[in-house]
Amino acid sequence: MTAKRQIKLSAYLVGTGMHTASWRLPGAQPGSSIDIDYYKRLAQTAERGKFDIAFLADSLAINEVSHPNILNRFEPITLIAALAGATSHIGLVATASTSYIEPFNLARLLMSVDHISKGRAGWNIVTTRDLSGNTARNFGAEEHLEHSFRYQRAAEFLQVVRGLWDSWEDDAFVRDKESGVFFDPQKLHRIQHKDEFFAVEGPLNIGRSPQGHPVLVQAGTSDSGQSFSAQVAEVIFSIKYNFADAEQFYRSYKGIVADAGRNPEGVHILQGFSPIIGSTDAEAQEKRKQLESFISEETGISFLTDYFKDIDFTGYTLDARADELGLGKLQLAKSDYRKHQLVIERENPTLREVYSLLTGAFSGEDWVGPPEKIADTMERWFSGGAADGFMLMAPSLPDGLEDFVDQVVPILQKRGLFRTEYEGATLREHLGIPVPPNRFTSIHA
Amino acid sequence: MTAKRQIKLSAYLVGTGMHTASWRLPGAQPGSSIDIDYYKRLAQTAERGKFDIAFLADSLAINEVSHPNILNRFEPITLIAALAGATSHIGLVATASTSYIEPFNLARLLMSVDHISKGRAGWNIVTTRDLSGNTARNFGAEEHLEHSFRYQRAAEFLQVVRGLWDSWEDDAFVRDKESGVFFDPQKLHRIQHKDEFFAVEGPLNIGRSPQGHPVLVQAGTSDSGQSFSAQVAEVIFSIKYNFADAEQFYRSYKGIVADAGRNPEGVHILQGFSPIIGSTDAEAQEKRKQLESFISEETGISFLTDYFKDIDFTGYTLDARADELGLGKLQLAKSDYRKHQLVIERENPTLREVYSLLTGAFSGEDWVGPPEKIADTMERWFSGGAADGFMLMAPSLPDGLEDFVDQVVPILQKRGLFRTEYEGATLREHLGIPVPPNRFTSIHA
Repeated sequence: MTAKRQIKLSAYLVGTGMHTASWRLPGAQPGSSIDIDYYKRLAQTAERGKFDIAFLADSLAINEVSHPNILNRFEPITLIAALAGATSHIGLVATASTSYIEPFNLARLLMSVDHISKGRAGWNIVTTRDLSGNTARNFGAEEHLEHSFRYQRAAEFLQVVRGLWDSWEDDAFVRDKESGVFFDPQKLHRIQHKDEFFAVEGPLNIGRSPQGHPVLVQAGTSDSGQSFSAQVAEVIFSIKYNFADAEQFYRSYKGIVADAGRNPEGVHILQGFSPIIGSTDAEAQEKRKQLESFISEETGISFLTDYFKDIDFTGYTLDARADELGLGKLQLAKSDYRKHQLVIERENPTLREVYSLLTGAFSGEDWVGPPEKIADTMERWFSGGAADGFMLMAPSLPDGLEDFVDQVVPILQKRGLFRTEYEGATLREHLGIPVPPNRFTSIHA
Repeated sequence: MTAKRQIKLSAYLVGTGMHTASWRLPGAQPGSSIDIDYYKRLAQTAERGKFDIAFLADSLAINEVSHPNILNRFEPITLIAALAGATSHIGLVATASTSYIEPFNLARLLMSVDHISKGRAGWNIVTTRDLSGNTARNFGAEEHLEHSFRYQRAAEFLQVVRGLWDSWEDDAFVRDKESGVFFDPQKLHRIQHKDEFFAVEGPLNIGRSPQGHPVLVQAGTSDSGQSFSAQVAEVIFSIKYNFADAEQFYRSYKGIVADAGRNPEGVHILQGFSPIIGSTDAEAQEKRKQLESFISEETGISFLTDYFKDIDFTGYTLDARADELGLGKLQLAKSDYRKHQLVIERENPTLREVYSLLTGAFSGEDWVGPPEKIADTMERWFSGGAADGFMLMAPSLPDGLEDFVDQVVPILQKRGLFRTEYEGATLREHLGIPVPPNRFTSIHA
């Protein structure tokens, strides 16, 4: 037993990997995004690596230029229900939006998988960014909810969901065969919620799980996103390009959590990274080049044209540089753009690199190289106040996860930075996050 | 290979069983309604018995007099996702209502479990009967949808869901690494639905499963329910008290299906039954008495008081007979009441028996006795034009299912009435129901 602070690790599982052209790699299984056996193997690999979390993203709309891995994909809550049976320890986090479902339904789905996994579930709360309105049009709405409004709804949504999760006190079910008393009606509670967005009476028809509630995860990077997540999130997921940005975000965000009256140590900040691991620097660079080479001119330009609506890409190839089209000077509202804007301005990357950046599979040079270099970067960020842990967004799968588990995890373990065995059973135990008390219990205490 | 018509079997899986007092039996596991390992064993037992279907019911609200098995239960879609990994052949049917969720979400959840189970999923379509308004109040509504209105919504809901399921033609995903073509945009379709209840553009972000669509199951017994289900259902689930009622329903319903322009042989009618199996008639009767004895006066009277709102039960015990309170003459709109009304009038049962009838775990005398008698009744109903198969609603679990699998199934097999091995892989193959063609494919054919 050691009280030493350790790195938290989450694996972002998505078909052939984060990189949009990863399906074209010789070893890639291009039908994997809808292959349940493949996902079970991924989750088992992450569990072999003693990861805290297997993470499943989501979206509620697609179009012709969507990442191939998301066109034909599992719904994440049903997916983690299936992965629960193929694993025994790893936490399973599913993404679900608060903008297009009733809180009663989502509260149930999530608590159900938390029981199915015996307390290993987590919910990555999103509000769904939908500038094109593609998602809204799948749900009978003409236009998407305005940004801050979405977070107001999310805040009330969370209030309802967490209330419903407490419908039954932990000792409500007496189940006394002799007397015929199945439950104590004093310990069954209705939230009687009625506010701006929702009216929900309760109770929920499922009780609390072995970890009380699923763990709440959030990736809010906008202002309203941060002020929302600081109120509720137990794990924060962010993507920063370099140590300085990561450290600044870490410090600022922990401050916001403290300002919200919560203990900053109870909130884990995971930094997303897309490492490219080779036995040497040169081999890793070669891997990266190979991946980039699979982005076709047509796909790349078509994505960028769709993304930067006001820019005319006619006559340019993916080898053109960002400044030729003024991409670093744009004033776009998209948060993934703002996140990368400084990098685009500072590094003046090729359009091919801009495309990789925006599609989330391009980290800085610190993340390309042999396993020791990756471990060094992780240690520097972790020990230097820039991260409590990391979200592995492997550019290609399954190799990117397997290489990390086989080559980087042992180094972290040797340095005492990461567990060698699971010590707990639930996701909250892995993360060292307490079971939330039942809001109704104190009344009778 | 034989072309002989065979019985279809479905097992209704619910905690300690259909009987509301089943949790009090000495062998009952009263926490089973929320025990995933228990449900896996149930599904495996049904699979050992070569059942076509493991069936999971649902409700979206509870109150103090709800059946103990439904107070704290899994959400059925996540549950069948988990059961898929614990079984290899049996079909998995989850209940979900069309009244309280967006069609895009439900289309996705169901198609996702159909992929997770490799084509073994089914959807029991319900519209949610909610006379008390308990469910409506969990979803921001003051009052429940009026009955026929609910079925209008359901019909449009189905139109949207089935359209979304066809978003991708079966050969849409080219996945040609060489050329970089992942899919053929000509084979991606948007339904562009806009009608009375829903506006949904599509496409769905998941393609068709190995069986095309999940199998559609329905239990509509009311008039508007029947005219709806005759349009869409592939399996019908009904509960009739005796052969005459079952035969009459069977004949009439097949007629309605034919009137709707569909082939009546493509729609399987499963009759629900709650057998009590003993090695002798006397032993079975003893078991039944034991079960009834566990209904406490308080629970029973409280349920009946809640059920028959206008009747005053003060001063009566559960040994009173129906005619003392005029229960057979009532004009209640509830379909489960109307279903049993004739029985209540004709047999003048005790209140204890009325309670059992209404809570769904009381079949006629033909279903109480040794295994041969149960098999005889099944054969008579099946061969006599009253059933294509049966829904086993065991009064107590797991024993009611185990006894049936070990003692009744072998008799049916010996008589050539039931399979000895699964011949197919998907639920549609088990049932002999064709894969629905993709509505968009003919355009390009």
